[in-house]
Amino acid sequence: MSTNSTGKATRRVQAALAAVEAADRPEIWITLRSGEDLLAEAGTIDAAAAGGADLPLAGLLLAVKNNVDVAGIPTTAACPGFAYTPEKDAEAVARLRAAGALVLGATNLDQFATGLVGTRSPYGAVRDSRRPEYISGGSSSGSAVAVALGLVDIAIGTDTAGSGRVPAGLQGIVGIKATLNVVSTAGVVPACRSWDAVTIFARHLSTAELAMGVMAGNSRPWPADIRLAAPERPRVAYPATLPALPEAWAAEFHHQIDRLRDTGVDAQAIEFDAFLDAARLLYDGALVAERHAAVGAFLEKNDGGAGGPAGIDPTVEGIIRAAGTVPAHRYIADTARLEALKGKAMTGLEGFDALLVPTAPFHPTLAEVAADPVGVNSLMGTYTNFCNLFDLCAVAVPAGEVDGAQFGLTVVGRTFDDALAADIARRIETTPAPPALFDGAVAHLEAAPGQPSSSAPWPLAAGATAVPLVVVGAHRKGQPLAPQLEELGAFWDGPVRTAARYRMVALDTVPAKPGVYRSDDGAELVGERWLLSPAALGTFLASLPEPMLLGSVQLSDGSTAVGFACDAVAAAGGKDITAWGDWLADRNVEPKPRTVWRDLGEVALAGFSRGERG
Amino acid sequence: MSTNSTGKATRRVQAALAAVEAADRPEIWITLRSGEDLLAEAGTIDAAAAGGADLPLAGLLLAVKNNVDVAGIPTTAACPGFAYTPEKDAEAVARLRAAGALVLGATNLDQFATGLVGTRSPYGAVRDSRRPEYISGGSSSGSAVAVALGLVDIAIGTDTAGSGRVPAGLQGIVGIKATLNVVSTAGVVPACRSWDAVTIFARHLSTAELAMGVMAGNSRPWPADIRLAAPERPRVAYPATLPALPEAWAAEFHHQIDRLRDTGVDAQAIEFDAFLDAARLLYDGALVAERHAAVGAFLEKNDGGAGGPAGIDPTVEGIIRAAGTVPAHRYIADTARLEALKGKAMTGLEGFDALLVPTAPFHPTLAEVAADPVGVNSLMGTYTNFCNLFDLCAVAVPAGEVDGAQFGLTVVGRTFDDALAADIARRIETTPAPPALFDGAVAHLEAAPGQPSSSAPWPLAAGATAVPLVVVGAHRKGQPLAPQLEELGAFWDGPVRTAARYRMVALDTVPAKPGVYRSDDGAELVGERWLLSPAALGTFLASLPEPMLLGSVQLSDGSTAVGFACDAVAAAGGKDITAWGDWLADRNVEPKPRTVWRDLGEVALAGFSRGERG
Repeated sequence: MSTNSTGKATRRVQAALAAVEAADRPEIWITLRSGEDLLAEAGTIDAAAAGGADLPLAGLLLAVKNNVDVAGIPTTAACPGFAYTPEKDAEAVARLRAAGALVLGATNLDQFATGLVGTRSPYGAVRDSRRPEYISGGSSSGSAVAVALGLVDIAIGTDTAGSGRVPAGLQGIVGIKATLNVVSTAGVVPACRSWDAVTIFARHLSTAELAMGVMAGNSRPWPADIRLAAPERPRVAYPATLPALPEAWAAEFHHQIDRLRDTGVDAQAIEFDAFLDAARLLYDGALVAERHAAVGAFLEKNDGGAGGPAGIDPTVEGIIRAAGTVPAHRYIADTARLEALKGKAMTGLEGFDALLVPTAPFHPTLAEVAADPVGVNSLMGTYTNFCNLFDLCAVAVPAGEVDGAQFGLTVVGRTFDDALAADIARRIETTPAPPALFDGAVAHLEAAPGQPSSSAPWPLAAGATAVPLVVVGAHRKGQPLAPQLEELGAFWDGPVRTAARYRMVALDTVPAKPGVYRSDDGAELVGERWLLSPAALGTFLASLPEPMLLGSVQLSDGSTAVGFACDAVAAAGGKDITAWGDWLADRNVEPKPRTVWRDLGEVALAGFSRGERG
Repeated sequence: MSTNSTGKATRRVQAALAAVEAADRPEIWITLRSGEDLLAEAGTIDAAAAGGADLPLAGLLLAVKNNVDVAGIPTTAACPGFAYTPEKDAEAVARLRAAGALVLGATNLDQFATGLVGTRSPYGAVRDSRRPEYISGGSSSGSAVAVALGLVDIAIGTDTAGSGRVPAGLQGIVGIKATLNVVSTAGVVPACRSWDAVTIFARHLSTAELAMGVMAGNSRPWPADIRLAAPERPRVAYPATLPALPEAWAAEFHHQIDRLRDTGVDAQAIEFDAFLDAARLLYDGALVAERHAAVGAFLEKNDGGAGGPAGIDPTVEGIIRAAGTVPAHRYIADTARLEALKGKAMTGLEGFDALLVPTAPFHPTLAEVAADPVGVNSLMGTYTNFCNLFDLCAVAVPAGEVDGAQFGLTVVGRTFDDALAADIARRIETTPAPPALFDGAVAHLEAAPGQPSSSAPWPLAAGATAVPLVVVGAHRKGQPLAPQLEELGAFWDGPVRTAARYRMVALDTVPAKPGVYRSDDGAELVGERWLLSPAALGTFLASLPEPMLLGSVQLSDGSTAVGFACDAVAAAGGKDITAWGDWLADRNVEPKPRTVWRDLGEVALAGFSRGERG
């Protein structure tokens, strides 16, 4: 089968097998699939792709954190005694595989996803991808390092207090933690059920977004007024004080804010106490009881101990056993405190499109963590803990280096503002070229840093609803009325042409607008397409002034969209500029003699004299 | 001040003071305000109303359950030792008072709102309004009986497991328990914080809706796709089995379903287990820990006992103390079970607009409750418990009598479907005339049973957003395309007329439609106005076919709305029927000679010959 042996997936697997061996990082993997299995599945994928199957992720290798089910691979959650072998994939895994992604193996983690360091595992501490005496960050340690080393293209992590972001920050890769539950947690070992999220890692934001669009679904419906893009000049808040950051890291953070300002972002410092207080509630309060609800029953049944048969990490065991003694009324009281803090924090974010924070505050060594396993771990979550507790979304992106470490920034967005967070993160991304280990088989899937991979924000691929709106005049990008659409969260989807069945007049309005009407004597008109939520479109229509109208418009590719028209009085009163073709193009073209309504069957028009008043 | 002494509020207070004395039900009140205070405040309200102040509730008397703060009245939650005197009104109270409602007093309740019987109070058991050997129902016992006896016009209750519905059912009045948190709980003593709701009682649904529109606010934002009305032929589910109902009550329930079917409702039996299982989780599981989180600290500080200084009811004390021993991990596990049950229950409701249940399963005597205080109480919540746990809304309405007791039905709606629940409840309501005690001072506020009190659903008064859409043809109520709007939850807001600036043609479409366009030679057209959510309007626009357009239309009263237009090709091709005025009116009027575009300045139209093809 020459098709199979030379297909993308097969070449990617062959390169990965060599790269895994060259990397010599056995601690990344809890289960690595055999070369035989991998090549067989790659052959199947290549054959399907060659046969025309719709496999947008064909050729991408996937690593899966071992607290997420992969059919036939033991789910250990990094605790050997906890292992069970699932018969089916977790929903997130199943969706990626159905799109052509190939699972290379299951990765190491801080046991039961309890930790942000990557050292709490009987399968070994996962080391930094570049400096082995440093930690990887966790708890999605193996997944992050596998991506950073180019062994896989995408990896599934989980994130309750920062486990999908801290290791992304320390490993110089991208981590997307979407709004809670837009990715199904079915088939995932819970850590803290109320705040668990399934996340994705990739080297480039574009790849991560592509995967998110496939992996997320409708387990939590998107709202009818979802915002699909950040405005041209986003307003971004950042913490006025930066606890836990060494001086050089704080300086780098401010340097990055200046870079972001250079791209047109309005960045303002805000009071950060409510966010920090929520983080403290997670570590020092009763909310930790969720960890016992998740795996406490298993612990109670086992004597455990690091050396025991169950292979329980002593730090993790201590945390979970203590969590079992919390009374419910204390948990409920802390939930109320959390809600009050969220109210305060959200008030602080009013008027901002997102919050910018450092992803991790510093990069500790393995030795530093060993000396103070709980203390260092808590500090690592300073800028991540509050996020899931407040039901926010986040995108962690690499942003250069500091003191030899990789520096990362995280853009935090409101619930369902995933597209905005990605837009702002795109302005930050400074991803180096993939490492040499990586053979480039999937390079075609990776857009240049700072560029979107596809024409639409990932929530649309993941089930959010949008309506296309075609504009030809003052609502085009950069034109005076475009901010009306941007404020409604509209996404600019690029240029289009209408079918050759419309005429255009210049309207006597401020600002100047073209008026369009259907005509059998029409021409193609140049326009642009925006994508809006249904509620945004309804709100826009509700405030649309006479003589503008909206209805179905046909495009040159045969598709339809909502588009503008003007009413009869305006159409007859405006100067015909159909010949311009493009309202923004050469306006010196002599207008054709008036033919308004000429197409209207037997209705003939005798003259025209009001067109010059504009 | 003759204005004051003869004003509505003053007359209402005078009548109420006499009625309170005549009723001789001291157990209703924990604090009854003095006649002097009441008459002084009534005078102020009457003077303000006479001065033109906007006081939609002026003349309405309000009773407030004594777990809701009223400035200056001790909040006891029916526990004397718990009392504190608040300096300001709870937000719900403040909103009603700002609209002119006058607080008559604070009412008795099952202590800490723990109970559905009305007997658990050191201030005395509240007795049924008609048969004093029977219970009132609770926990909002005093509020419900005060309304039933006509002592007040509206009363605030609270509802966690049914406290705003069970007493409404037993007392033959209306109780609205809105979607959680659309009424602020600020200033309310929590019972189970996650599931507490502030409710309203009134004798008529119209009065209750009027009060809800004032009392609810934006503490939980309404969604952009809120449904504002039930469809013409609603689909209603009801339980296939009726546990806890005596035979006569079950027969009455089925009789009421038949009555509802006669109004055009499609009623279908569904499997009810998931709903019942959730109720069991509340009583037998760990969720009850919320009660300890609410008032456990107070209990721990007091020795209590029914005879002790704190005045703690022994049944309530037992429940709350036991709730304090629940470990957090069990509470969290039950929360997960609850979520699974909700998923199952909601799947069962798919395709239905609402769920219909009996409000209370039977009407026990005081003696029956005394003999088995916990057992009878649990049964009383059979058809109410699941509601707040599943984040549903509910409207309880009277529906005749059975075995000498008042029979009540509750319409349960999905989250934010409050307007649908009220619409369906309106078809059921069979409210007798107010009792003779009631002097009729506020009769003008009470519409006849089954009729809406105002022109719009109460969520719109309470902050939900809607857009008016004016239709003149096939989307009018009862016309072939009206279901498109009904399916989107549009509310029919009645007939309107456009300004005299539009012309109308008959379009050659199936179904037949009029096409409208603006014209300086236009006429008034008869239309109807619907109210839609922004998302519904956007969705409607997205599916609107050529040649129909939407834009701003001016009405005869000077207001504007979104309205239909047709495009130029269609307008010129249709037969002019402007002279009809009303698309549904006398179609034998001879159409005027074609004047399309005659208003368009110097543009003259030579002829017309395509109008007869329709």
